[in-house]
Amino acid sequence: MAFAGWKLAACMGEVTPMAIQEMLRLTQGRPIINLAGGLPSPRTFPVEALAEASTSILLGDGVAALQYSSSEGYAPLRRLVASRLPWPVDPDQVLITTGSQQGLDLLGRALVDPGDRVLVETPTYPGALQAFRAIRARPCGVAADADGALDLNDLRRQAVGEPQAQAPARFLYCMPNFQNPSGRLMPARERANLCAAAAELELPIIEDDPYAELWFGEAPPKPLAALNPEGCVYLGSFSKVMAPGLRLGYLVAPPAIYASLVHLKQGADLHTPIFNQRLVHAVLARADYFNEKLRADRAFYRRQRDLMLAALRREMPAGVHWNVPDGGMFIWVRLPAGVDADALLPQALAGGVAFLPASGFHAGTAERHALRLSYATAEPAEIEAGIATLARAVRAGQA
Amino acid sequence: MAFAGWKLAACMGEVTPMAIQEMLRLTQGRPIINLAGGLPSPRTFPVEALAEASTSILLGDGVAALQYSSSEGYAPLRRLVASRLPWPVDPDQVLITTGSQQGLDLLGRALVDPGDRVLVETPTYPGALQAFRAIRARPCGVAADADGALDLNDLRRQAVGEPQAQAPARFLYCMPNFQNPSGRLMPARERANLCAAAAELELPIIEDDPYAELWFGEAPPKPLAALNPEGCVYLGSFSKVMAPGLRLGYLVAPPAIYASLVHLKQGADLHTPIFNQRLVHAVLARADYFNEKLRADRAFYRRQRDLMLAALRREMPAGVHWNVPDGGMFIWVRLPAGVDADALLPQALAGGVAFLPASGFHAGTAERHALRLSYATAEPAEIEAGIATLARAVRAGQA
Repeated sequence: MAFAGWKLAACMGEVTPMAIQEMLRLTQGRPIINLAGGLPSPRTFPVEALAEASTSILLGDGVAALQYSSSEGYAPLRRLVASRLPWPVDPDQVLITTGSQQGLDLLGRALVDPGDRVLVETPTYPGALQAFRAIRARPCGVAADADGALDLNDLRRQAVGEPQAQAPARFLYCMPNFQNPSGRLMPARERANLCAAAAELELPIIEDDPYAELWFGEAPPKPLAALNPEGCVYLGSFSKVMAPGLRLGYLVAPPAIYASLVHLKQGADLHTPIFNQRLVHAVLARADYFNEKLRADRAFYRRQRDLMLAALRREMPAGVHWNVPDGGMFIWVRLPAGVDADALLPQALAGGVAFLPASGFHAGTAERHALRLSYATAEPAEIEAGIATLARAVRAGQA
Repeated sequence: MAFAGWKLAACMGEVTPMAIQEMLRLTQGRPIINLAGGLPSPRTFPVEALAEASTSILLGDGVAALQYSSSEGYAPLRRLVASRLPWPVDPDQVLITTGSQQGLDLLGRALVDPGDRVLVETPTYPGALQAFRAIRARPCGVAADADGALDLNDLRRQAVGEPQAQAPARFLYCMPNFQNPSGRLMPARERANLCAAAAELELPIIEDDPYAELWFGEAPPKPLAALNPEGCVYLGSFSKVMAPGLRLGYLVAPPAIYASLVHLKQGADLHTPIFNQRLVHAVLARADYFNEKLRADRAFYRRQRDLMLAALRREMPAGVHWNVPDGGMFIWVRLPAGVDADALLPQALAGGVAFLPASGFHAGTAERHALRLSYATAEPAEIEAGIATLARAVRAGQA
């Protein structure tokens, strides 16, 4: 018998599949060179260290590592996370989350009412759009200047709700280090100006920082949260420096909102798996080992970046431009005016290479002539073959 | 400098700390006999099997077990879960969740608009109230008859929104097997009547079933989802039969809403830790081992129940009543009319024993003269001492 009782909540009209998860599905099991996903290289996973930690935790303290636990997270991990951050952080302000994606979800739910505007960069991370749209927030992109910097005049207008006299925006979401997708590093001076503007506007900042440790030249400038601890929530992740399959992230929130986030987390999943918290803590506590691993990861991703840059220079026709990221996993490629990235994708997939068109990375009107490449996962030969294939598709698109 | 920009979303007015998490905090590290929490006994954790599985997965297939993964969950686990359920389930309808708490959260968000009513049992599980209130749903308790059965006339009135001509309720949330907190098992005939009423009312059912495997006499009747697969979402959990610290649950949803739940999960945490899914799959796949473990768990919890029942009979004054649960972890105790469970709690804690008063388990007006005891975690001597202490507090409260 048919059942006609299911009615979806109004928010579900805003929730669509994430392009990147769909791409994972499309490419799974197919012989496709994946320059699309932001998957960390499996070469960086500390498999043996995790195996050792796992045995030692389960056989040494299995009962505590498998029981229910506190919503705030494993206290020694909160302390270690706080101590590693580059500004003074009270461990009581650290909340362990089920990936930093959960942090975005909790923050949206705690801070935004349906219909409210939230400000994001142009372009921005699709997972944030997914989380914010699910609560019926309206993400609005702040314009960037010629250097890719946030246009502070546009930020001011949009924050206060001009010109249509709307309610003030609830927060700015941004990723100052090696941004996903643009790869951009926000310079120190720009950080200071942004924090000053946000303080003046009373605009909270959500600072997402999963790539902080993956720098190639020198460590990035201090986070916005270090400049503005009371007006900023900082999101960190172990997905890029330990393993994404553990779903382990954290946030640092000021006392004004910390307890609200904990109460929301109780309803969302009670707490993050304590076993996973113990595993990450055990590897992180081996400071010499972990810091050496980070050095090796940085060198590895830098080599991958250099390979991809060399291939781009060698293969791409004139009129194609890209940035040189100083860290992270992504290169943002701008195509000649006549070449549409969405139209290019089926051609590239047919040739055996996947990328992500710019269209998934925008809050409002999508950019048509840009795409994101990741150099993180593919093997060197794949990077070279993949870029050659992509370049052929671009040339065909120009013809 | 002070920052005055944080403003909480309206829903945060409904979100308060969960009593049970607060109790965990109050009792942590203190020499208190814990009859409050629904913590599974650590004796039931398959520590060695998990340690073996962990080593074998990490060293044998670490890369796949640590990488990003699909939002629906690990396909072999979805198949195994489907095959173990007592009705025909398509693995494509199984969604792996970060504990069944996440299932409640996703369902509330997918199905309820702010201000909508959802129906719950009287009493009901506080974690469901927490999840539903966080989305500004209004949980309404359905009356129970003298046997504790859902009053179907009250269900009909409340489902359609009488007598104030409100919008229809969005769903009924219930736990037919060894309910938390009442310990009640819903008889087969009542299940059939409830499903018939729900179908007629076009009222979706959320069936929460974490204790299904922990029966003492015979296996419980078929779940509501087996009688009414198109009109029911079924929630299962590995917290009570494997280990809560892994945060591993699942739901079985009809095609009408399955994709919506997956898209919401992408925004909530991308996916449940794949390493944890692999661990649970590995232990579950050892069917002989796992089924034997379940037999031992049932016998263990039955002995614990019997000990607590004997202590209650021995210690409690006249006028105190309780049920005899056929499975699960809880005994629901009704106090004499003059004794208030909330007032009793500080006395009991001072004497060194913790329980949960009925007040946390109600959607509306709270019952004052009842409390929940768990026999799951405490040692036999603790159960006896704890009940003796509690009985003294009850007597003092009567005086």
